[in-house]
Amino acid sequence: MNAHQWTETLRVGDGFRLDDVDAESTPGYHGHKADGARDLAEGLVALNDLQERLFAESRTGTATDAVLLVLQAMDSAGKGGIVRHVVGGVDPQGVSLAAFKAPTDEERAHDFLWRIEKRLPEPGFIGVFDRSHYEDVLIGRVRALAPPEEIERRYDAINAFEADAAASGIRIVKVMLHISPEEQKSRLMERLERPDKHWKYNPGDVDERLVWPEYMRAYQTVFERTSTEIAPWHVVPANRKWYARLAVQELLLAALEDIDPQWPVADFDVEVEKKRLAAS
Amino acid sequence: MNAHQWTETLRVGDGFRLDDVDAESTPGYHGHKADGARDLAEGLVALNDLQERLFAESRTGTATDAVLLVLQAMDSAGKGGIVRHVVGGVDPQGVSLAAFKAPTDEERAHDFLWRIEKRLPEPGFIGVFDRSHYEDVLIGRVRALAPPEEIERRYDAINAFEADAAASGIRIVKVMLHISPEEQKSRLMERLERPDKHWKYNPGDVDERLVWPEYMRAYQTVFERTSTEIAPWHVVPANRKWYARLAVQELLLAALEDIDPQWPVADFDVEVEKKRLAAS
Repeated sequence: MNAHQWTETLRVGDGFRLDDVDAESTPGYHGHKADGARDLAEGLVALNDLQERLFAESRTGTATDAVLLVLQAMDSAGKGGIVRHVVGGVDPQGVSLAAFKAPTDEERAHDFLWRIEKRLPEPGFIGVFDRSHYEDVLIGRVRALAPPEEIERRYDAINAFEADAAASGIRIVKVMLHISPEEQKSRLMERLERPDKHWKYNPGDVDERLVWPEYMRAYQTVFERTSTEIAPWHVVPANRKWYARLAVQELLLAALEDIDPQWPVADFDVEVEKKRLAAS
Repeated sequence: MNAHQWTETLRVGDGFRLDDVDAESTPGYHGHKADGARDLAEGLVALNDLQERLFAESRTGTATDAVLLVLQAMDSAGKGGIVRHVVGGVDPQGVSLAAFKAPTDEERAHDFLWRIEKRLPEPGFIGVFDRSHYEDVLIGRVRALAPPEEIERRYDAINAFEADAAASGIRIVKVMLHISPEEQKSRLMERLERPDKHWKYNPGDVDERLVWPEYMRAYQTVFERTSTEIAPWHVVPANRKWYARLAVQELLLAALEDIDPQWPVADFDVEVEKKRLAAS
């Protein structure tokens, strides 16, 4: 039994309904904010140890596995905070971070997965997608950026793509950070009230708020079509930032423990090298 | 006058001789290890603030400048520790890290700067090169990996390349971490003695140790040929890790203060947006 089993409750399974998730809640976790901060700090020690072992395998050419954290959310839900406070706690040498913005003209000329595939993590790395190929069935669907039959095609294409990635050794951890529209309003208002936060605000954020129910329906469809055995979705209530960070850390820990990376065995004769070094 | 002027003493100027640098020393800094740890933690707060402003400019499309930290050193001198403990303290979203290994066949088929240019930081980012184009005039020279006339050509090519990068807004901070051969021996021996450190050891490390004086001569030539006004070298004594980390942090702070990034001014009407948001 896995120590991180409490995050199992966040996993999207049959019959999941996004509407039923309370963004204020802290499912599976029985502590409060102070406990969460303590557990996050403790988890970071474990995360660092596992990440270093995984990275060590990459340096000796023995790594076969990688982790990919896919982060999706409405604006201001806390993706940046996850990158900063969860991923930011491990050695940057072993992390590959890709932030996907609106596609460029070159990217648009290719299949929607073209730019994604190029950013998959190498063996031994923890990859993070800050937004991802799911934008192409989220904003893509809500804003009708592609014909309906193309949107429809993409769900299966995503499943096939992720199955290939998983078969190559990538543990895919898909997370939707779920905030309530009221919480988003309060966070966006804070950005407007602080000149040092204006850069984080975009008038388009309010445009997207106005179609919040359409986004929730698009997410619901994403969960129904792409929460697979091999790459399940997790919906993380995110009104409480401390909870969301802890939950994502636990999901990463579970993925790394599943890989169970080991310190590489020396491919040289340690005693011979000690003598060579001593004589040098 | 810049608060970080103490690192000026590390700058390679006319008449510099690497042989004269004591790897144990802590030039320009009058504190001890505990002071260094405290100052590093304080510096991190300032570094984060500056980095966030710089990154904010990148998000609003107003960034014109970037920072590039070039790290060169003999094995085990502490490049990884700089990445981890100095660069690792800032938001990973604003950092682009490139670790240059021995070139691939594809890279070898191009000019030595081809793979380097592709990894220059975008405006608003702090780029870090863990090894760099200087390998092509260091191991390249010591191991005669290219004809002498090609090695000779590269110094001017590097200066021209860096002048272009600087003209495009990149502040180039070039650092050689300088350890003594005795310190290296002790660090490599520790790697051999600990099974969880074996992955960091490579028998080739001892081969390179055996030509230490040749490497020091190659570095001396690098300093003489490529420590320019626009992209000067800094030699950081690195036997004391705490000092090296503090010095590199100070150099980064000086570069960022020189850029003096400002919170972007809103390109929307804040009061109008508050009303739109409130009504949404």
